[in-house]
Parts: sequence; C-alpha cells; structure tokens
Amino acid sequence: MSDEWPTTDFSRLEMLYGPLAGSVRRLVDISIRTTADPATVAAAKLKIDSAADELSASAQSEPFGVQRTRDGNTIAWGNAVIGLRNPVAPPLVIHREADGQVWSEFVLGAPYEGPPGHVHGGVCALILDHVLGATAHQPHRPAYTGTLILRYLRKTELGRPLRAEAHVERVDGAKTFSTGLIADDDGPTVEAEGIFIHSKQPSA
Amino acid sequence: MSDEWPTTDFSRLEMLYGPLAGSVRRLVDISIRTTADPATVAAAKLKIDSAADELSASAQSEPFGVQRTRDGNTIAWGNAVIGLRNPVAPPLVIHREADGQVWSEFVLGAPYEGPPGHVHGGVCALILDHVLGATAHQPHRPAYTGTLILRYLRKTELGRPLRAEAHVERVDGAKTFSTGLIADDDGPTVEAEGIFIHSKQPSA
Repeated sequence: MSDEWPTTDFSRLEMLYGPLAGSVRRLVDISIRTTADPATVAAAKLKIDSAADELSASAQSEPFGVQRTRDGNTIAWGNAVIGLRNPVAPPLVIHREADGQVWSEFVLGAPYEGPPGHVHGGVCALILDHVLGATAHQPHRPAYTGTLILRYLRKTELGRPLRAEAHVERVDGAKTFSTGLIADDDGPTVEAEGIFIHSKQPSA
Repeated sequence: MSDEWPTTDFSRLEMLYGPLAGSVRRLVDISIRTTADPATVAAAKLKIDSAADELSASAQSEPFGVQRTRDGNTIAWGNAVIGLRNPVAPPLVIHREADGQVWSEFVLGAPYEGPPGHVHGGVCALILDHVLGATAHQPHRPAYTGTLILRYLRKTELGRPLRAEAHVERVDGAKTFSTGLIADDDGPTVEAEGIFIHSKQPSA
C-alpha cells in the first residue's frame, strides 16, 4: 500500500476494529474449549457465519500487515504477533527501553498449545523471531530474519505470566546480531539468537 | 487428561466441532480484512459475543492440545499448527511417507502476515518446528524440540501454494536430528534443522 494515513484516522479505526478483534479472539479461545451440544453449536455457528457474511461485504482482498501513517510511523494492524486487528495474534505489546532492550509481557491460552497444557515450541519461535527482530527495526527501514537459532531449556506453560526480551549484541553493516529469551518467574524457558538483515534501500 | 476415548467418539465430535472451527477460521480472516462501517461492525460484534457466550456455558477450563484414543492414537485437536478445533491453526494436515519423510501442503492467508503480503518469519518457524518435530514423534513417545535453527533464504508469500517437508538425518539415543524446508514452486524459502528429544519414560 502506498497510501499514507493520518495518525488520527488510525486511532479512530483502531477504536472501531480493535474491539471486534477482541471479540473474535475470545470466540477463538472458547470455541476450542467448548463442550456444547449439537443444537448450541449449530445456533452459534449460524451467528458466526452471519457475522462473517456481513463483514465480508466490505473485505479488502489484501492483508493488513503494515500500514504507514503520515508522521512516519508504521502500524502493524494485521501482524501475526502484534496485530491489534489480527485475532490470531495474542497480541503482544512491544516495549522499547532507552538502552535498546525490547520486551513484552503476556499470557498464552488454549490457542497456542502444543504439548498438553504447554505452549507449542513453534509459538515460542514465532514470538522470539518477532521480539528479536524488533531490536533491529528502524522507521522506514524494516529488518528481515536471516538466521534464527532457538534452544529449548524446558517446557513453557500456558496460562502463566511470561516475558520475552531481546537486545542487540552487535551490528555489522546491514546485519544486526541479537539475543533474547522467553522466561517465566522461575527463569528462562527458551533462549534465542538471530541475525536480522536490513534491506539495502530504505522503503519508500 | 487421563481419560481415553474411543475413536468413534472422536469422529462424532470432529463432525460437530470441526465445522465450528472452520466458521471461526473464516471469521478470523474476514475480520482482519473488513472495512465495514461502525453500524455493521457493531451488529457483527453482537452476534460474535452472543455466540461466544452460548459456547462458553460449557467450556472446559483446560486446553485440548492432545487427547488419546483407546486404540493408542493421539489426536491433537487444539494444537496451534494442526489442531482441527483450533481456529489459530491453518490447520496443517501432516502426511508421512514410508521412507519417513513428513510433508504438508498449504496456503497461508491474512492471519499469518508479517511483512506486507508475506508470511511472518516466525510463522515459518512455527510450521517448521512442527513438521521437523513430526519426524521424531512416535505413538506414546512424544518428542520435544531441543534446538531449532532456521535460515531464511527469501520472503515467503501469502496466498501462494506452499509445501513444508522434513526428514530424519540421524538418531543418537534420545535425540533425533532432522532437516526440512518450506518451499514454493520456485524452490525453498526457509531451511531448518532441529534436534528433537524423546522423554525418557514413555507417556502413560
């Protein structure tokens, strides 16, 4: 998308579509855990299909991963990790410290399960890719994952407060070398290191 | 969960809850892409909340990652990658060849976006963790990710037919060393190698 939108438009649209995503996120979680009988499931399915039909009349064909505002910021509405409008995203809120550390605190529920009661190892990889990559991102100069190495120390529990954090180890030309981890209050569960690569040309 | 269910119960319950997950999956996709006006969004949100309320009356507190059937199979209903009942999962269907190769073919839409129009690098990691791990899984003897290394060769496109595949390179005691990749019809986009570890005791 080449159009740039004023930040005020984004705020207005987030107030409109954010709560919709929240409702869908809640439905996702409940739909996995429900033991409802066939009549209840059929009635709920009718409502869900009707809501989807109404919303689809005006659905854009293109996804919403990144949109740019006129003040130079980008907003990742549809991003699979942080997208406010994406019910698949937890969504993580990414914080940046003055010293360059990036962190996020979150709890993962039923939709992120692998082993019973535990976070899917690949979901840990998804989150660490994003959080490590966020150390390398600069306005108008996105960084792409080159290499990502994950070491799983122990299982990560669903329903427990978790923290992901990362920082830059060094920068070598277009390459940013970062390390990070996911931890619960007993310590790290997964450690990661990654190389993230800036595109040669700043994106327009 | 220690209860074991007959396979016929699973078939019946999949016929009940599978289409529900399909409807929620469609709603997830449309809710990201819709440009509906506030009145349409409000009406859809009411239906979604009502459906969630009805289904929540009988929602179990525990997730559904793996359930075991009396014939010794396990069914990963809620799994974040392959869970038929999990709207966050694409869901991937995993195929196993006689020579041990594991593969899956799929198309990823808006919910899996990172860079505009492209699959989130972490989603590729999520899928490769699962597909490589599947080479090591044995009935009653799950394997957990120990180490996973991902090399991103180029961006992976949304909306394009993709294939993930993996095979075992070697087994050393409790460790299975596997390699794999994601490819489109122009070749690989992400390569992976991993070490997967069997728990010492077979699970009951």
